Amino acid sequence: MSEAAVRVIGLWASPYVIRVLIALKLKGLEYEFVEEVVGKKSELLLRSNPVHKKIPVLLHHGKPVCESLVILQYIDEVWPSSSGGAPAALLPADPYTRAVHRFWAQYIDDKVPSAVRVLKGTDAVDKDQAAGQLAAALQLLEQAFVELSHGKHCFGGGSVGYLDLALVSHVGWVKAVEKIAGVALLDKAKVPKLVAWADRLCAHPAVVDAIPDADKFVEYSVKYGSFSKPINGPK
Amino acid sequence: MSEAAVRVIGLWASPYVIRVLIALKLKGLEYEFVEEVVGKKSELLLRSNPVHKKIPVLLHHGKPVCESLVILQYIDEVWPSSSGGAPAALLPADPYTRAVHRFWAQYIDDKVPSAVRVLKGTDAVDKDQAAGQLAAALQLLEQAFVELSHGKHCFGGGSVGYLDLALVSHVGWVKAVEKIAGVALLDKAKVPKLVAWADRLCAHPAVVDAIPDADKFVEYSVKYGSFSKPINGPK
Repeated sequence: MSEAAVRVIGLWASPYVIRVLIALKLKGLEYEFVEEVVGKKSELLLRSNPVHKKIPVLLHHGKPVCESLVILQYIDEVWPSSSGGAPAALLPADPYTRAVHRFWAQYIDDKVPSAVRVLKGTDAVDKDQAAGQLAAALQLLEQAFVELSHGKHCFGGGSVGYLDLALVSHVGWVKAVEKIAGVALLDKAKVPKLVAWADRLCAHPAVVDAIPDADKFVEYSVKYGSFSKPINGPK
Repeated sequence: MSEAAVRVIGLWASPYVIRVLIALKLKGLEYEFVEEVVGKKSELLLRSNPVHKKIPVLLHHGKPVCESLVILQYIDEVWPSSSGGAPAALLPADPYTRAVHRFWAQYIDDKVPSAVRVLKGTDAVDKDQAAGQLAAALQLLEQAFVELSHGKHCFGGGSVGYLDLALVSHVGWVKAVEKIAGVALLDKAKVPKLVAWADRLCAHPAVVDAIPDADKFVEYSVKYGSFSKPINGPK
């Protein structure tokens, strides 16, 4: 049997992998998921991403693309429409709006995973600070959502796009650390629009299977706690 | 007098500002450089980049674009040709090559400024480690240059592009920390292609005025040492 044209090397629990899988589903593309073993790095991964040795890697006809936000843009440029032929752009068409979405996607990856990492850990003092920083970041993202969504359901307006993927891919872990650290982050009283957005997005057909319940992330964190750094490290 | 259509808020010594100014010159665009005062943040900067409060900010008809690599892509999308009408794309046309260039640009900003920051400092032990890491990064970039340039003068082949800007903007500081820390980094014996590339690029008409001699960066580092963090912080 020949290799699939599109393969993704990853682990289900990595937010950076999750966003790539959702993007492929949104585009209606068939792909093979090549699951890594936690704590090991396969020969295929080491060969495909020799610089960072990190997931995810998208293999397109065997050629590797690394770094999740780079992968999302690659997917968007190679497959501007869905497999059914309908337009399904991830990034907005207007250059200024594209720049704003790129800005916030980078902001998310700068702020969210570093705080999640601390909140999964054991140092109570650091946790308070990280929870505060993450809450402040979500507050800014709530404002950004109001400005960018124009009263519609997604950051990009009517359809799920690049910035939605950048943020929703972290939602599983954000909900998990709410339980692990006993903090309220996606709090209806503080970020109501973002909570409603997260609920809607997590129920979306392209997203629902990619982001399991928070309990599964909690379980994963307990089981593979010592590997939390490499799992969250890759972008 | 009305405001210029394109303005850049920055400081001459910031690599992230340097790359934006070079991009505007490559496109043949007129712009106004709004220079910040070291150690202060102007009202205009705080208003234009309230999230990070960092330079550079590109103001296009008053609308702010932040984060230097986002700005480069914005410039490329708004002005695909130079002011003379000649094609002057910064990013390659092919999606795979674009992804590779985006990957390396991100790699550069992950590895180079953090090492430069340590090498400007006073801790000798850290310096050895930082010099080693930076030398290793330059070695990988030498290999990337060989693979991507196809025997031509730039990372993108025949003309100066996105990845060239991402790296050349750090060259002034790399040469400065060679002097400050007494280490050889852009070393002909180790990275000959990269040294030749840097010499060529720094003599390019769009680059030559944007990157002063290493001595000017050294002088700046001595004068504003305590401000080295904010200067290198912004992306």
